[in-house]
Amino acid sequence: MKIFLAQQNYHIGNFEANTAKILAAIENAKKQDGDLIVFSELAICGYPPRDFLEFNDFIEQSLVSLNKIRDAADTIGVLVGCPSRNPKAEGKNLFNSAFLLYEQHIKGIVHKSLLPNYDIFDEYRYFESAYEWNVLEFKGKKLAVTICEDIWNLGNDPLYRICPMDELIKQQPDIMINLSASPFDYVHADGRKGIVKQNVLKYQLPMVYCNAVGSQTEIVFDGGSLVMNANGGLVDEMPYFKESLTSVNWNEDGAFLEKVVRPADNVPLLDDLVPEQFEAGRNIEMIYEALLLGIKDYFSKMGFKKAIVASSGGIDSAVVLTLACHALGAENVSALLLPSQFSTGHSVSDAEQLSKNLNNHYDIIPIKDVFGSFETALKPVFKDLPFNIAEENLQSRIRGAMVMALSNKFGYILLNTSNKSELATGYGTLYGDMAGGLGVLGDLYKQQVYALARYINRDREIIPDSIINKAPSAELRHDQKDSDSLPEYDILDPILYQYIERRQGPKEIIAMGSNAALVARILKLVNTNEYKRNQFCPIIRVSPKAFGIGRRVPIVGKYLS
Amino acid sequence: MKIFLAQQNYHIGNFEANTAKILAAIENAKKQDGDLIVFSELAICGYPPRDFLEFNDFIEQSLVSLNKIRDAADTIGVLVGCPSRNPKAEGKNLFNSAFLLYEQHIKGIVHKSLLPNYDIFDEYRYFESAYEWNVLEFKGKKLAVTICEDIWNLGNDPLYRICPMDELIKQQPDIMINLSASPFDYVHADGRKGIVKQNVLKYQLPMVYCNAVGSQTEIVFDGGSLVMNANGGLVDEMPYFKESLTSVNWNEDGAFLEKVVRPADNVPLLDDLVPEQFEAGRNIEMIYEALLLGIKDYFSKMGFKKAIVASSGGIDSAVVLTLACHALGAENVSALLLPSQFSTGHSVSDAEQLSKNLNNHYDIIPIKDVFGSFETALKPVFKDLPFNIAEENLQSRIRGAMVMALSNKFGYILLNTSNKSELATGYGTLYGDMAGGLGVLGDLYKQQVYALARYINRDREIIPDSIINKAPSAELRHDQKDSDSLPEYDILDPILYQYIERRQGPKEIIAMGSNAALVARILKLVNTNEYKRNQFCPIIRVSPKAFGIGRRVPIVGKYLS
Repeated sequence: MKIFLAQQNYHIGNFEANTAKILAAIENAKKQDGDLIVFSELAICGYPPRDFLEFNDFIEQSLVSLNKIRDAADTIGVLVGCPSRNPKAEGKNLFNSAFLLYEQHIKGIVHKSLLPNYDIFDEYRYFESAYEWNVLEFKGKKLAVTICEDIWNLGNDPLYRICPMDELIKQQPDIMINLSASPFDYVHADGRKGIVKQNVLKYQLPMVYCNAVGSQTEIVFDGGSLVMNANGGLVDEMPYFKESLTSVNWNEDGAFLEKVVRPADNVPLLDDLVPEQFEAGRNIEMIYEALLLGIKDYFSKMGFKKAIVASSGGIDSAVVLTLACHALGAENVSALLLPSQFSTGHSVSDAEQLSKNLNNHYDIIPIKDVFGSFETALKPVFKDLPFNIAEENLQSRIRGAMVMALSNKFGYILLNTSNKSELATGYGTLYGDMAGGLGVLGDLYKQQVYALARYINRDREIIPDSIINKAPSAELRHDQKDSDSLPEYDILDPILYQYIERRQGPKEIIAMGSNAALVARILKLVNTNEYKRNQFCPIIRVSPKAFGIGRRVPIVGKYLS
Repeated sequence: MKIFLAQQNYHIGNFEANTAKILAAIENAKKQDGDLIVFSELAICGYPPRDFLEFNDFIEQSLVSLNKIRDAADTIGVLVGCPSRNPKAEGKNLFNSAFLLYEQHIKGIVHKSLLPNYDIFDEYRYFESAYEWNVLEFKGKKLAVTICEDIWNLGNDPLYRICPMDELIKQQPDIMINLSASPFDYVHADGRKGIVKQNVLKYQLPMVYCNAVGSQTEIVFDGGSLVMNANGGLVDEMPYFKESLTSVNWNEDGAFLEKVVRPADNVPLLDDLVPEQFEAGRNIEMIYEALLLGIKDYFSKMGFKKAIVASSGGIDSAVVLTLACHALGAENVSALLLPSQFSTGHSVSDAEQLSKNLNNHYDIIPIKDVFGSFETALKPVFKDLPFNIAEENLQSRIRGAMVMALSNKFGYILLNTSNKSELATGYGTLYGDMAGGLGVLGDLYKQQVYALARYINRDREIIPDSIINKAPSAELRHDQKDSDSLPEYDILDPILYQYIERRQGPKEIIAMGSNAALVARILKLVNTNEYKRNQFCPIIRVSPKAFGIGRRVPIVGKYLS
């Protein structure tokens, strides 16, 4: 049996484009004599559709598209993800389903059983869980079809009380097929291979695992669809961060006919992958690719072309400007330099050198006179009160207003440059440097930003060394350094990582060897700055726990604060 | 049996304050010879604790508090809400529980069965559902204890496949007791009485229903705890928006000994309450109270004292300034008037008159010169391009920076004045008039803002009539009116209401009599402005569907856009 995997990039709610893409892959597979083609979870409407699912009209449009695809599924079997209506009154009105289409009919439907509702996931908000399980018959074979999370409930502390494959295995299936929309984080590609291996070993069946690719605002789907033999040998691993249509030939009595690209011994199990420590350079090349795709898809799906970056001569804006040029083309990226009286000379020259290296347009607008006019206007109210955080933030907000003026005038989208260490501790100005449409570095701790800069410079100096080597500073007062307000990043970042990614409390973090007063101070900073992050733009998620929709903390909470 | 209901205002994660409050109520009830005292859902940690629940330390602190309360529960029974650990490996690690404490022991535990996960609720993210049901024995009586959502699954289209009271009734309980954290919206108080009545009639048992009170960032809990006889007669309805400790005497063979304050005939069933149409004035007095509590609790729980409002002479800022003065005291509220060259003369005089009526401090800072300095600075880049939205937004952002400068200098919290009609259509400037720490009117359509202004002026003119009567304008260009960009509000608001609150699609809204092109235009405005609302501050929720955490829409989605 020749099975195609269609790893595609969908646009949520864009039924016309998604359907056309699915039909094109079907045509292509038919030409190559495919027996079956597998698409990813909720391919027809795009994943995650979120509250669009609450509109009847949205479900209707999904089902209209499903019918078009059914009509194309004549000589080839199609497995495709689509929401479906729950015919029973009891329970939620929808299922997250996979349809088997063949001979222009719906030959079978499978509903997702395990509805993830942690981190960025909200599936129980919309869907009823399956509570009956049946294999799908196709060309004399029994397919055990599951959807994403359905195969993840193994291990010693399972999140759900049922395991759909434990039910399906009773019907003696011949193969497992999983339709996924499994998002990227810098450890998740390994996790996926590990869980697929745990499944094939447990159930002694081969598996075809088809994932989505493409970025949806903050969530990057990285692809990397898999085909694995029953012994855990990897037959195919599709590309990451790219669309792909790939076929495998399944010897219906057992293994795939293709060569094993990675023997079972080389595929670690999920249970063996426990990320306990912060490593700034971990999978930095995948993070780089994820950020490029995150930028590119945000622009293309929003219908934008041109970006602007407030380029300060610091490391964060240098990395963002470079990523923007790599993702969108330097001709579509503008830099704006906004020096003040507190900017050091090298800030401007470094930022200029960077734009020369990247070959992107830049403008320089000094903000000193505007700042002066604010001071004059405020004088009757501020009187002789000393310069403090009000004036520091004001400079940042003048920059925000300036770069947004260019954004409005020329149709640029402002890319934000705040990193995760800053966002965690509230070291940033609302409506100033926290402005922007998309947070490019918001899920990278400062040390990861440095690792990314070194990765960008791996072949030649794109980001000037002087930017990488200078001490970080916001330059909002004379001779300011980040280290005036924050611990050094090699102390700060690992503590933040344990608290944010690993959800360790003060006791556990102190037990790892950190200073108790410092831990209390840092956790308090994180918790009291929730109100700032709440107004931040979407952040491209690259870690297992990003700020944004995947982390939901009460603003008025009084905990560790 | 003398049963106390403790309707209290908790602070999420503030175990010390919450425990002290609970212990004080127990002491008070003991002095009055209470047999049993009932607290609300998750009283010990505060509701909703959200991702704090992911920290072991947070659960430990909850259980330490529970032990303190257990020790105080000697001669009185205590029913109190607290998270508990799931002893089984399978399923999520926590339950949302109610503990019966008596004779200094835990006499029984009940877990919540139905975990709401719609709108603002995320309970399935953290909790396992109960799957065993037992009444709690107390002084020879059988208590059917449920938690909030557990009693809401009646009617023809139930959201869940089980109904815990259907299980508990088999054990022949004597009374139903429900611990709730049920939030306010302008129809929900009626809804609660309606569902309690449906339960007492269905199960032929009296019910004690104890709700929380107090605002948690965006969610206002309004109290209104209830005691109802088995025939649907209302025995007690506790105050709204206030703490209260009330007792009822239950004749254990049937009804309560208290007089019926509202006979069964006068309590409509939930199923009879279907809000289909937009009514600007509906329950406006409760909305007023909810907004006051929302402001007051945001400030007290965040540890803030003083507020600032950018006072434009328009209706929105006038209403916000008034609410702030009523909630915090005029001595804690500052107004800032920021006229530009496009401000009409009456804008300043109206705003001044308002502050004189309210007796709050105000400053006037004209922004013309700062705007001029921006124009000069931008000239080399903007060259001779005509005045457009860039310059309009710039004025708004100068105002944002100016009011934030005062906020930073004097420790004021900026109250935002955007209304729901503006937020829905994107008629506002990010980092300008969309700035602020708390969105006071973000869940009120423009017509509701007018209704609220008239309510505020019900006894005497606080908001000058000229503010209420002038045509709405942002005053960002010469002679601008809202109606240049938007339909009239009496056309716009009902369409927005059908789309947002009622989740009606274009077909349904057009079928109600609206113009098709206009509907398409409005829905497109709503959907393409998701990116703006995503960066907006928390909004005090007063409707069944507010923007913010209760409405989750993909930003890059391409649906009706």
